[in-house]
Amino acid sequence: MRTIIQLKTLQATLSAVGDGKRVGLVPTMGALHEGHLALMHRARRECDVVVVSLFVNPTQFGPGEDYDTYPRHLASDQVKAKHAGVDFLWTPGVDDLYPAGDQTVVDVGAIGRRWEGEHRPGHFRGVATVVAKLFAAIQPHRAYFGQKDYQQVCVIRQMTRDLRFPTTLRILQTVREADGLAMSSRNERLLPTARAVAPALYRSLQSARTMWKRGERRAKAITECVESGLSAFPPIQGEYVALCHPDTLEPLHQITDKAVLLAAIRLGSVRLIDNIVLAARLSSPD
Amino acid sequence: MRTIIQLKTLQATLSAVGDGKRVGLVPTMGALHEGHLALMHRARRECDVVVVSLFVNPTQFGPGEDYDTYPRHLASDQVKAKHAGVDFLWTPGVDDLYPAGDQTVVDVGAIGRRWEGEHRPGHFRGVATVVAKLFAAIQPHRAYFGQKDYQQVCVIRQMTRDLRFPTTLRILQTVREADGLAMSSRNERLLPTARAVAPALYRSLQSARTMWKRGERRAKAITECVESGLSAFPPIQGEYVALCHPDTLEPLHQITDKAVLLAAIRLGSVRLIDNIVLAARLSSPD
Repeated sequence: MRTIIQLKTLQATLSAVGDGKRVGLVPTMGALHEGHLALMHRARRECDVVVVSLFVNPTQFGPGEDYDTYPRHLASDQVKAKHAGVDFLWTPGVDDLYPAGDQTVVDVGAIGRRWEGEHRPGHFRGVATVVAKLFAAIQPHRAYFGQKDYQQVCVIRQMTRDLRFPTTLRILQTVREADGLAMSSRNERLLPTARAVAPALYRSLQSARTMWKRGERRAKAITECVESGLSAFPPIQGEYVALCHPDTLEPLHQITDKAVLLAAIRLGSVRLIDNIVLAARLSSPD
Repeated sequence: MRTIIQLKTLQATLSAVGDGKRVGLVPTMGALHEGHLALMHRARRECDVVVVSLFVNPTQFGPGEDYDTYPRHLASDQVKAKHAGVDFLWTPGVDDLYPAGDQTVVDVGAIGRRWEGEHRPGHFRGVATVVAKLFAAIQPHRAYFGQKDYQQVCVIRQMTRDLRFPTTLRILQTVREADGLAMSSRNERLLPTARAVAPALYRSLQSARTMWKRGERRAKAITECVESGLSAFPPIQGEYVALCHPDTLEPLHQITDKAVLLAAIRLGSVRLIDNIVLAARLSSPD
């Protein structure tokens, strides 16, 4: 595995690798965990060349958010990526993706404004913009994302389709700790007391899915189930629980077909999100 | 030359042509004139495969603008493109570039808001968005534009650079009629009386350049020279005359180095723009 900093070097290297090769891109913000590694392993199986980008994207963090404290572990990330069979670990500087005088933004409209977008104004504009840059610069055949960031996947799908990038998105199931907590780079910032109650997020979503499996179809009953599951643990501050259409993310009052249940909480200074799909036949997300 | 409608067909065709070939793209809105043909000839000389897109982009027209009456001459455009040595004439439908549910916009910020942007709100957002789609979909090595649309070139340069597209922009000098009128698809919509006075636009810009060559450096004197040249022809309604920095398009009060002089007029229902660069050594625009 080779670590490359400059975009120009990466582009020259990919050109030299030879055309006609399938290039797989795994965009990450580093602090790699099992979820990221699952994306890399899949990319390794499906592509000729695997590129992992490691870039903590400033434009998707709002004022007062955790850009400065976001975990950064380049040395151990390099070891993990190498073991996962990655060919190129690309670690651009901010200037490489946002050159001096940068002004251009990519906005995906309504799907980026609700839920996470309401709590993190501008977040998905930053996500759509940086992923558009990655796709424009690298022109990957396939790009890999985790379903943990459900709304992010919707936003990237909208951007990719609307801007007519030929990149195929591969969305992989959330990888979880033994106690159900979704893997996230932010988990390491949880204090022990917070870490102890964090699994309540996924357990509450599971309880709601059980309700749904038993026939409950009313959004109010399902979201209240999650909320009451969370409120049993006072350190948890719920931000939102939303039952929505799995593609548009518009809120549903009643489930008629498929739905997705989204939730966000705060635990001290750490914000966590998770989701669960409610579908008769759980299709593989990829 | 082959005319292709569907993007998918074009993408499959370009893949089959073989990787490693240099693809040149000439984006047009059709109604091809000598200016377009100069771009095609240049692309033919510099690239292995020449693609001309012909798409009257709805999102760059404002309400009440001439989207419906914009000239459309597919049959003669096909003949002209073929004679210019084009390989593929791509004539997508609106749904192919703006699929159902399309929401994504590309905005280049300040450089798209002044001058033309003030008179045509949203125009350059439409331009940046559609060109981003063309570049994402086709991934051309080179793309060809005319200097007649000076601000458009600045907007596309900003978008291309910010989004990190590896496409090289080739900007070619404005092609003019014998009497100096810049070639434009809209010229054919000028009534004979309007066509007779239209060359005053470029002649006024030339007069200003003569002033500048004689040592005038004050923006006010230079723009007034253009304005008085235009006002000698009552059918001409001036929209703006602007002396600006050639890269940022910020207005200049005094010329210290290079500058560009932009002007827009109305002649009946037809809107025309033109520009002239004021530079000590007129570097070739490409």
